[in-house]
Amino acid sequence: MAKVTIDNKTLVYPMPAFLIGANVDDKPNFMTAAWSGIAGGTPPVITVGIRHTRYTLKGIKQNMTFSVNVSSVALAKETDYCGIESGSKVDEVAVCKFKVFYGKLDTAPLIEQCPVNLECKALHILDVGSHALIVGQIEETYVSEDCLTDGEPDVDKIKPIIYVTQPGRRYQAFGEVVGKAHTIGRELTSAETG
Amino acid sequence: MAKVTIDNKTLVYPMPAFLIGANVDDKPNFMTAAWSGIAGGTPPVITVGIRHTRYTLKGIKQNMTFSVNVSSVALAKETDYCGIESGSKVDEVAVCKFKVFYGKLDTAPLIEQCPVNLECKALHILDVGSHALIVGQIEETYVSEDCLTDGEPDVDKIKPIIYVTQPGRRYQAFGEVVGKAHTIGRELTSAETG
Repeated sequence: MAKVTIDNKTLVYPMPAFLIGANVDDKPNFMTAAWSGIAGGTPPVITVGIRHTRYTLKGIKQNMTFSVNVSSVALAKETDYCGIESGSKVDEVAVCKFKVFYGKLDTAPLIEQCPVNLECKALHILDVGSHALIVGQIEETYVSEDCLTDGEPDVDKIKPIIYVTQPGRRYQAFGEVVGKAHTIGRELTSAETG
Repeated sequence: MAKVTIDNKTLVYPMPAFLIGANVDDKPNFMTAAWSGIAGGTPPVITVGIRHTRYTLKGIKQNMTFSVNVSSVALAKETDYCGIESGSKVDEVAVCKFKVFYGKLDTAPLIEQCPVNLECKALHILDVGSHALIVGQIEETYVSEDCLTDGEPDVDKIKPIIYVTQPGRRYQAFGEVVGKAHTIGRELTSAETG
Protein backbone atom coordinates (compact mmCIF):
# COMPACT_ATOMS: atom_id res chain seq x y z
CA MET A 1 0.00 0.00 0.00
CA ALA A 2 1.73 3.16 -1.18
CA LYS A 3 1.57 6.42 0.76
CA VAL A 4 1.72 10.03 -0.37
CA THR A 5 2.63 12.92 1.90
CA ILE A 6 0.48 16.04 2.02
CA ASP A 7 3.00 18.20 3.86
CA ASN A 8 2.16 18.57 7.57
CA LYS A 9 -1.58 19.10 7.17
CA THR A 10 -3.97 18.87 10.17
CA LEU A 11 -5.97 16.03 8.61
CA VAL A 12 -7.86 13.74 10.99
CA TYR A 13 -11.26 12.02 10.96
CA PRO A 14 -13.55 12.62 12.75
CA MET A 15 -13.39 16.30 13.66
CA PRO A 16 -16.25 17.78 15.69
CA ALA A 17 -18.36 20.89 14.98
CA PHE A 18 -18.81 22.29 18.48
CA LEU A 19 -20.30 25.66 19.34
CA ILE A 20 -17.96 27.32 21.84
CA GLY A 21 -19.68 29.89 24.06
CA ALA A 22 -18.32 32.78 26.10
CA ASN A 23 -19.66 36.03 27.45
CA VAL A 24 -17.91 38.94 25.72
CA ASP A 25 -18.49 42.22 27.53
CA ASP A 26 -21.33 40.46 29.42
CA LYS A 27 -23.07 39.35 26.20
CA PRO A 28 -23.29 35.68 25.10
CA ASN A 29 -21.26 34.86 22.02
CA PHE A 30 -20.65 31.62 20.09
CA MET A 31 -18.14 30.36 17.56
CA THR A 32 -17.83 27.05 15.75
CA ALA A 33 -14.77 24.95 16.52
CA ALA A 34 -13.56 21.75 14.89
CA TRP A 35 -10.29 21.79 16.81
CA SER A 36 -11.24 20.36 20.16
CA GLY A 37 -10.92 17.12 22.10
CA ILE A 38 -11.19 15.58 25.54
CA ALA A 39 -7.88 15.66 27.42
CA GLY A 40 -8.39 14.00 30.81
CA GLY A 41 -10.86 12.18 33.04
CA THR A 42 -10.15 13.03 36.70
CA PRO A 43 -10.76 15.91 36.69
CA PRO A 44 -12.60 15.95 33.34
CA VAL A 45 -10.63 18.19 30.97
CA ILE A 46 -11.24 19.38 27.39
CA THR A 47 -9.10 21.43 24.97
CA VAL A 48 -10.14 23.92 22.29
CA GLY A 49 -7.79 25.58 19.79
CA ILE A 50 -8.89 29.14 18.99
CA ARG A 51 -7.23 31.67 16.66
CA HIS A 52 -5.81 34.56 18.72
CA THR A 53 -7.93 37.14 16.91
CA ARG A 54 -11.31 35.49 17.59
CA TYR A 55 -13.92 37.51 19.44
CA THR A 56 -14.96 34.53 21.57
CA LEU A 57 -11.40 34.22 22.92
CA LYS A 58 -11.71 37.74 24.32
CA GLY A 59 -14.67 36.55 26.40
CA ILE A 60 -12.89 33.42 27.62
CA LYS A 61 -10.03 35.61 28.85
CA GLN A 62 -12.44 38.05 30.54
CA ASN A 63 -14.20 35.41 32.65
CA MET A 64 -11.95 32.34 32.37
CA THR A 65 -15.13 30.36 31.67
CA PHE A 66 -16.61 28.94 28.45
CA SER A 67 -19.00 26.31 27.16
CA VAL A 68 -18.78 23.50 24.63
CA ASN A 69 -22.13 22.85 22.96
CA VAL A 70 -22.49 19.68 20.87
CA SER A 71 -24.23 20.45 17.61
CA SER A 72 -26.72 18.28 15.75
CA VAL A 73 -28.14 17.65 12.28
CA ALA A 74 -31.04 20.01 13.10
CA LEU A 75 -28.58 22.81 13.93
CA ALA A 76 -26.17 22.39 10.99
CA LYS A 77 -27.09 25.75 9.40
CA GLU A 78 -26.72 27.61 12.70
CA THR A 79 -23.41 25.86 13.38
CA ASP A 80 -22.12 26.85 9.97
CA TYR A 81 -23.34 30.43 10.47
CA CYS A 82 -21.36 30.78 13.72
CA GLY A 83 -18.28 29.61 11.82
CA ILE A 84 -18.75 32.18 9.04
CA GLU A 85 -19.82 35.23 11.07
CA SER A 86 -18.27 36.95 14.10
CA GLY A 87 -20.15 38.13 17.15
CA SER A 88 -18.18 41.37 16.87
CA LYS A 89 -20.30 42.24 13.82
CA VAL A 90 -23.64 40.41 14.08
CA ASP A 91 -25.90 39.20 16.88
CA GLU A 92 -25.47 35.48 16.34
CA VAL A 93 -27.82 34.57 19.17
CA ALA A 94 -30.67 36.56 17.59
CA VAL A 95 -30.04 35.32 14.04
CA CYS A 96 -29.75 31.67 15.14
CA LYS A 97 -32.63 32.02 17.63
CA PHE A 98 -30.51 30.38 20.32
CA LYS A 99 -32.15 30.10 23.73
CA VAL A 100 -29.28 30.80 26.10
CA PHE A 101 -29.13 29.58 29.70
CA TYR A 102 -26.48 29.75 32.41
CA GLY A 103 -25.43 27.13 34.95
CA LYS A 104 -23.29 27.06 38.06
CA LEU A 105 -20.45 29.19 36.63
CA ASP A 106 -22.78 32.13 35.80
CA THR A 107 -20.65 33.39 32.88
CA ALA A 108 -20.54 30.40 30.50
CA PRO A 109 -23.50 30.75 28.09
CA LEU A 110 -25.13 27.44 27.09
CA ILE A 111 -27.42 26.77 24.11
CA GLU A 112 -30.67 25.07 25.05
CA GLN A 113 -31.24 23.65 21.55
CA CYS A 114 -27.88 21.82 21.58
CA PRO A 115 -28.39 18.25 22.83
CA VAL A 116 -25.26 18.20 25.03
CA ASN A 117 -23.57 21.12 26.80
CA LEU A 118 -20.36 21.25 28.83
CA GLU A 119 -19.83 24.13 31.22
CA CYS A 120 -16.10 24.76 31.63
CA LYS A 121 -13.58 26.71 33.65
CA ALA A 122 -10.38 27.69 31.76
CA LEU A 123 -7.35 26.23 33.56
CA HIS A 124 -4.61 27.20 31.10
CA ILE A 125 -4.30 29.21 27.90
CA LEU A 126 -1.24 28.08 25.94
CA ASP A 127 0.18 29.93 22.97
CA VAL A 128 0.74 27.29 20.29
CA GLY A 129 1.43 29.65 17.37
CA SER A 130 -1.52 30.84 15.27
CA HIS A 131 -3.89 29.51 17.95
CA ALA A 132 -4.44 29.72 21.68
CA LEU A 133 -4.97 26.29 23.23
CA ILE A 134 -7.60 26.52 25.95
CA VAL A 135 -7.35 23.73 28.53
CA GLY A 136 -10.63 23.69 30.43
CA GLN A 137 -12.04 21.73 33.32
CA ILE A 138 -15.61 20.47 32.76
CA GLU A 139 -17.70 21.60 35.73
CA GLU A 140 -21.12 20.38 34.65
CA THR A 141 -22.58 18.41 31.72
CA TYR A 142 -26.15 18.92 30.50
CA VAL A 143 -28.21 16.70 28.22
CA SER A 144 -31.60 17.50 26.68
CA GLU A 145 -34.25 15.35 28.30
CA ASP A 146 -35.67 14.31 24.92
CA CYS A 147 -32.25 12.85 23.98
CA LEU A 148 -32.30 10.29 26.80
CA THR A 149 -33.31 6.63 26.63
CA ASP A 150 -33.79 4.96 30.02
CA GLY A 151 -32.06 7.95 31.61
CA GLU A 152 -28.91 7.63 29.46
CA PRO A 153 -27.78 9.94 26.61
CA ASP A 154 -28.70 8.29 23.30
CA VAL A 155 -26.61 9.16 20.23
CA ASP A 156 -29.48 8.13 17.93
CA LYS A 157 -31.62 10.89 19.44
CA ILE A 158 -28.76 13.39 19.80
CA LYS A 159 -27.93 13.09 16.06
CA PRO A 160 -24.52 14.83 16.23
CA ILE A 161 -22.62 16.07 13.20
CA ILE A 162 -19.04 15.60 12.03
CA TYR A 163 -16.97 18.28 10.31
CA VAL A 164 -15.18 16.87 7.27
CA THR A 165 -12.49 18.85 5.44
CA GLN A 166 -11.55 16.47 2.67
CA PRO A 167 -12.95 16.22 0.05
CA GLY A 168 -14.58 19.67 0.22
CA ARG A 169 -15.78 20.98 3.53
CA ARG A 170 -19.01 19.41 4.69
CA TYR A 171 -20.98 18.16 7.66
CA GLN A 172 -21.90 14.49 7.95
CA ALA A 173 -24.24 12.57 10.22
CA PHE A 174 -23.22 9.46 12.16
CA GLY A 175 -23.64 6.22 10.21
CA GLU A 176 -24.11 2.54 10.93
CA VAL A 177 -22.73 0.76 13.98
CA VAL A 178 -19.49 -1.05 13.11
CA GLY A 179 -19.09 -3.01 16.33
CA LYS A 180 -19.13 -3.03 20.10
CA ALA A 181 -16.14 -1.34 21.71
CA HIS A 182 -14.09 -3.19 24.36
CA THR A 183 -15.55 -6.34 22.78
CA ILE A 184 -14.80 -6.88 19.08
CA GLY A 185 -11.04 -6.72 19.72
CA ARG A 186 -11.31 -9.84 21.87
CA GLU A 187 -11.73 -11.90 18.71
CA LEU A 188 -8.06 -11.23 17.99
CA THR A 189 -7.10 -12.31 21.51
CA SER A 190 -8.94 -15.62 20.97
CA ALA A 191 -7.30 -16.10 17.58
CA GLU A 192 -3.91 -15.54 19.18
CA THR A 193 -4.38 -18.03 22.01
CA GLY A 194 -6.74 -20.43 20.19
CA MET B 1 -36.72 21.84 26.25
CA ALA B 2 -35.76 20.51 29.66
CA LYS B 3 -32.19 19.58 30.55
CA VAL B 4 -30.78 17.05 32.97
CA THR B 5 -27.26 17.17 34.38
CA ILE B 6 -25.04 14.10 34.32
CA ASP B 7 -22.44 15.45 36.74
CA ASN B 8 -19.29 16.66 34.95
CA LYS B 9 -18.98 13.78 32.50
CA THR B 10 -16.64 13.97 29.45
CA LEU B 11 -19.50 13.48 26.97
CA VAL B 12 -18.97 14.85 23.46
CA TYR B 13 -19.85 13.65 19.94
CA PRO B 14 -17.92 12.81 17.84
CA MET B 15 -14.90 11.31 19.58
CA PRO B 16 -12.19 9.72 17.43
CA ALA B 17 -10.62 6.27 17.69
CA PHE B 18 -6.99 7.02 16.83
CA LEU B 19 -4.08 4.62 17.13
CA ILE B 20 -1.27 6.46 18.92
CA GLY B 21 2.17 5.10 18.14
CA ALA B 22 5.47 5.38 19.98
CA ASN B 23 8.68 3.41 20.17
CA VAL B 24 9.06 1.95 23.67
CA ASP B 25 12.58 0.68 24.29
CA ASP B 26 13.11 0.87 20.50
CA LYS B 27 10.07 -1.30 19.73
CA PRO B 28 6.91 0.06 18.03
CA ASN B 29 3.87 0.21 20.27
CA PHE B 30 0.30 1.41 19.73
CA MET B 31 -2.63 2.38 21.93
CA THR B 32 -6.15 3.49 21.05
CA ALA B 33 -7.10 7.04 22.04
CA ALA B 34 -10.49 8.76 21.87
CA TRP B 35 -9.21 11.80 23.72
CA SER B 36 -7.47 13.79 21.03
CA GLY B 37 -8.06 16.85 18.87
CA ILE B 38 -6.36 19.36 16.60
CA ALA B 39 -5.10 22.41 18.53
CA GLY B 40 -3.51 24.79 16.04
CA GLY B 41 -2.77 25.45 12.38
CA THR B 42 0.53 27.33 12.05
CA PRO B 43 2.39 25.32 13.12
CA PRO B 44 -0.01 22.36 12.92
CA VAL B 45 -0.56 21.09 16.47
CA ILE B 46 -2.52 18.14 17.92
CA THR B 47 -3.25 17.07 21.50
CA VAL B 48 -3.66 13.59 23.00
CA GLY B 49 -4.71 12.81 26.56
CA ILE B 50 -3.00 9.67 27.89
CA ARG B 51 -3.30 8.06 31.32
CA HIS B 52 0.01 8.41 33.20
CA THR B 53 0.41 4.65 33.58
CA ARG B 54 0.14 3.81 29.87
CA TYR B 55 3.03 1.98 28.26
CA THR B 56 2.86 4.14 25.11
CA LEU B 57 3.44 7.27 27.20
CA LYS B 58 6.79 5.82 28.30
CA GLY B 59 7.84 5.72 24.65
CA ILE B 60 6.67 9.27 23.95
CA LYS B 61 8.79 10.46 26.86
CA GLN B 62 11.82 8.44 25.68
CA ASN B 63 11.90 9.94 22.18
CA MET B 64 9.57 12.97 22.40
CA THR B 65 8.01 11.71 19.17
CA PHE B 66 4.74 9.88 18.43
CA SER B 67 2.25 9.18 15.68
CA VAL B 68 -1.50 9.59 15.28
CA ASN B 69 -2.95 6.96 12.96
CA VAL B 70 -6.54 7.42 11.76
CA SER B 71 -8.43 4.15 11.99
CA SER B 72 -11.06 2.83 9.59
CA VAL B 73 -14.02 0.47 9.43
CA ALA B 74 -11.70 -2.27 8.13
CA LEU B 75 -9.46 -1.86 11.21
CA ALA B 76 -12.17 -1.64 13.90
CA LYS B 77 -11.19 -4.97 15.53
CA GLU B 78 -7.49 -4.06 15.61
CA THR B 79 -8.31 -0.60 16.99
CA ASP B 80 -10.40 -2.15 19.73
CA TYR B 81 -7.68 -4.69 20.49
CA CYS B 82 -5.09 -1.92 21.04
CA GLY B 83 -7.53 -0.32 23.48
CA ILE B 84 -8.00 -3.53 25.47
CA GLU B 85 -4.43 -4.86 25.51
CA SER B 86 -1.12 -3.28 26.52
CA GLY B 87 2.13 -3.51 24.59
CA SER B 88 3.82 -4.26 27.91
CA LYS B 89 2.17 -7.72 27.85
CA VAL B 90 1.45 -8.65 24.23
CA ASP B 91 3.01 -7.93 20.83
CA GLU B 92 0.20 -5.80 19.38
CA VAL B 93 1.99 -5.30 16.09
CA ALA B 94 2.23 -9.05 15.51
CA VAL B 95 -1.35 -9.83 16.62
CA CYS B 96 -2.82 -7.00 14.51
CA LYS B 97 -0.47 -7.71 11.60
CA PHE B 98 0.39 -4.01 11.40
CA LYS B 99 2.97 -3.09 8.76
CA VAL B 100 5.03 -0.43 10.51
CA PHE B 101 7.00 2.25 8.68
CA TYR B 102 9.03 5.25 9.83
CA GLY B 103 9.23 8.75 8.35
CA LYS B 104 11.45 11.76 8.83
CA LEU B 105 11.48 11.60 12.65
CA ASP B 106 12.87 8.01 12.68
CA THR B 107 11.28 7.13 16.06
CA ALA B 108 7.53 7.63 15.43
CA PRO B 109 6.11 4.31 14.19
CA LEU B 110 3.35 4.63 11.57
CA ILE B 111 0.82 1.98 10.52
CA GLU B 112 0.70 1.38 6.78
CA GLN B 113 -2.87 -0.02 6.86
CA CYS B 114 -4.25 3.17 8.47
CA PRO B 115 -5.50 5.52 5.75
CA VAL B 116 -4.06 8.70 7.35
CA ASN B 117 -0.96 9.05 9.55
CA LEU B 118 0.43 12.06 11.36
CA GLU B 119 4.07 12.03 12.41
CA CYS B 120 4.50 14.26 15.49
CA LYS B 121 7.11 15.79 17.73
CA ALA B 122 6.04 16.28 21.37
CA LEU B 123 6.30 19.97 22.31
CA HIS B 124 4.80 19.86 25.80
CA ILE B 125 3.60 17.22 28.25
CA LEU B 126 1.14 18.77 30.72
CA ASP B 127 -0.06 17.06 33.87
CA VAL B 128 -3.85 17.50 33.86
CA GLY B 129 -4.66 15.06 36.69
CA SER B 130 -5.31 11.42 35.80
CA HIS B 131 -3.93 12.09 32.32
CA ALA B 132 -0.87 13.58 30.64
CA LEU B 133 -1.82 16.00 27.88
CA ILE B 134 0.63 15.64 24.99
CA VAL B 135 0.84 18.73 22.80
CA GLY B 136 2.51 17.70 19.57
CA GLN B 137 3.59 19.41 16.40
CA ILE B 138 2.62 17.59 13.19
CA GLU B 139 5.77 17.18 11.11
CA GLU B 140 4.41 15.14 8.22
CA THR B 141 1.03 13.79 7.13
CA TYR B 142 0.67 10.61 5.07
CA VAL B 143 -2.35 9.36 3.14
CA SER B 144 -2.78 5.94 1.52
CA GLU B 145 -2.71 6.33 -2.25
CA ASP B 146 -5.86 4.24 -2.68
CA CYS B 147 -7.77 6.75 -0.47
CA LEU B 148 -7.21 9.65 -2.87
CA THR B 149 -9.57 11.00 -5.53
CA ASP B 150 -7.98 13.41 -8.00
CA GLY B 151 -5.00 13.66 -5.66
CA GLU B 152 -7.08 14.70 -2.61
CA PRO B 153 -7.91 12.60 0.48
CA ASP B 154 -11.43 11.21 0.10
CA VAL B 155 -13.39 10.43 3.27
CA ASP B 156 -15.61 7.99 1.35
CA LYS B 157 -12.54 5.87 0.61
CA ILE B 158 -10.89 6.45 4.01
CA LYS B 159 -14.02 5.17 5.83
CA PRO B 160 -13.03 6.44 9.30
CA ILE B 161 -14.71 5.35 12.53
CA ILE B 162 -16.18 7.27 15.46
CA TYR B 163 -15.96 6.15 19.08
CA VAL B 164 -19.32 6.50 20.81
CA THR B 165 -19.67 6.09 24.58
CA GLN B 166 -23.40 6.60 25.04
CA PRO B 167 -25.46 4.46 24.77
CA GLY B 168 -23.04 1.57 25.28
CA ARG B 169 -19.55 1.80 23.85
CA ARG B 170 -19.41 1.26 20.13
CA TYR B 171 -17.78 2.28 16.86
CA GLN B 172 -19.81 3.92 14.13
CA ALA B 173 -19.11 4.74 10.50
CA PHE B 174 -19.66 8.16 8.95
CA GLY B 175 -23.19 8.72 7.64
CA GLU B 176 -24.94 10.87 5.07
CA VAL B 177 -23.82 14.36 4.09
CA VAL B 178 -25.87 16.98 5.95
CA GLY B 179 -24.67 20.04 4.06
CA LYS B 180 -21.76 22.02 2.66
CA ALA B 181 -19.67 23.82 5.28
CA HIS B 182 -18.96 27.55 4.92
CA THR B 183 -22.04 27.59 2.71
CA ILE B 184 -25.31 26.40 4.34
CA GLY B 185 -24.99 29.03 7.09
CA ARG B 186 -25.28 31.77 4.47
CA GLU B 187 -28.99 31.01 4.21
CA LEU B 188 -29.38 32.56 7.64
CA THR B 189 -27.40 35.65 6.57
CA SER B 190 -29.77 36.08 3.61
CA ALA B 191 -32.82 35.63 5.84
CA GLU B 192 -31.44 38.29 8.17
CA THR B 193 -30.79 40.88 5.48
CA GLY B 194 -33.54 39.80 3.04
